[in-house]
Amino acid sequence: MTRTLYGFWRSLAAFRVRAAMNLKGLDYREVSIDLFNGEQDLPAFRAINPMGAVPALVEDDHPPLTQSLAIIEYLEEVHPAPPLLPASPRARAHCRALALTVAADAHPLVTPRVRNYLDHVLKVDEPTKMAWIEHWSRTALRALERQLVDAPGPYCMGPSVTVADICLTTHVVGARLFKFDLAEFPTCVRIADACLALEAFARAHPLEQVGAPAAR
Amino acid sequence: MTRTLYGFWRSLAAFRVRAAMNLKGLDYREVSIDLFNGEQDLPAFRAINPMGAVPALVEDDHPPLTQSLAIIEYLEEVHPAPPLLPASPRARAHCRALALTVAADAHPLVTPRVRNYLDHVLKVDEPTKMAWIEHWSRTALRALERQLVDAPGPYCMGPSVTVADICLTTHVVGARLFKFDLAEFPTCVRIADACLALEAFARAHPLEQVGAPAAR
Repeated sequence: MTRTLYGFWRSLAAFRVRAAMNLKGLDYREVSIDLFNGEQDLPAFRAINPMGAVPALVEDDHPPLTQSLAIIEYLEEVHPAPPLLPASPRARAHCRALALTVAADAHPLVTPRVRNYLDHVLKVDEPTKMAWIEHWSRTALRALERQLVDAPGPYCMGPSVTVADICLTTHVVGARLFKFDLAEFPTCVRIADACLALEAFARAHPLEQVGAPAAR
Repeated sequence: MTRTLYGFWRSLAAFRVRAAMNLKGLDYREVSIDLFNGEQDLPAFRAINPMGAVPALVEDDHPPLTQSLAIIEYLEEVHPAPPLLPASPRARAHCRALALTVAADAHPLVTPRVRNYLDHVLKVDEPTKMAWIEHWSRTALRALERQLVDAPGPYCMGPSVTVADICLTTHVVGARLFKFDLAEFPTCVRIADACLALEAFARAHPLEQVGAPAAR
């Protein structure tokens, strides 16, 4: 099977899908859609994803799959080992809720299309925009820290990596790319660092992708 | 089983969970958390959902379940009939992507916490805030319309109601509460109206809930 991920080095949502594919041992090639240069809005890419967002995953000549969490649920159904969700329905619900705290509550507020709106429509200055990004980043981290502080570890749901860890880790990496102080969130940082010690996450890291700035 | 939904008449995310429970024939009582008066930020409710958001679903004395899509996936796993997802993995992925276009890409941008930030931190005026809400509402509707225009109907995925319909319908109802012109999105409107003709959706409608303004 030919598996093509339309992504971008800086996209945390593409990072999530790369991590999931690496954890499941799936091969793929990645095509970079430069979100900083508006390539997501070109007609050729809008035909792949009408939302003009990465990631999109194309397998052979099947229609593109979009939305990082929908792609990860698909991968989980088709390639169940190793599992990225716990076994019991209540644990799965908690795991998905942690994932959505990042992927639905926080990340959509800081994507390029929102930053463009802040720049060009609301015309806020750079410090105001950075304060916006930091506010929503920290709001999610506070909620995650509170829910995870008593978790046994090393990962969100215990001894196995799940989609909650994928979302939490990409969120922490995003916060670090912005150089936010994460001292208030020791549990989140500890879990993210446990994940980043795994080859599947390290290889999926934004700064390891084509197009990323050379130095960390 | 005692099933308590913490919701609010105006919350589109609570509307999604009500519709799913009604479609599956599940009994519940609803406790209103007044998002317009900040009840979501009171310590008593933050203990139920650290994100300070509705919905949260509590069954007997189990820990609260949060995030509308995580709750609906849970209900789907525990009460599989009638199904709210298609059978095949690719169709499920497409269905979940449509749902996330609303629940992750669009709705988080217009929730009370974001509107409060626009009001109190960015200090934008009312027309600017309404333009923000309408912009993100229409962005999602454009993407949905493009993906659904060739669908056979009557629902997003064909003859059965799915979580995509739940998300699309709540989004259309939200746009109508703001009185946005939806003439550009005939497919979305047609699907939403097909859903709203069902008792499960009609009974879950925001304006049918305790606390809603009396007249439509």
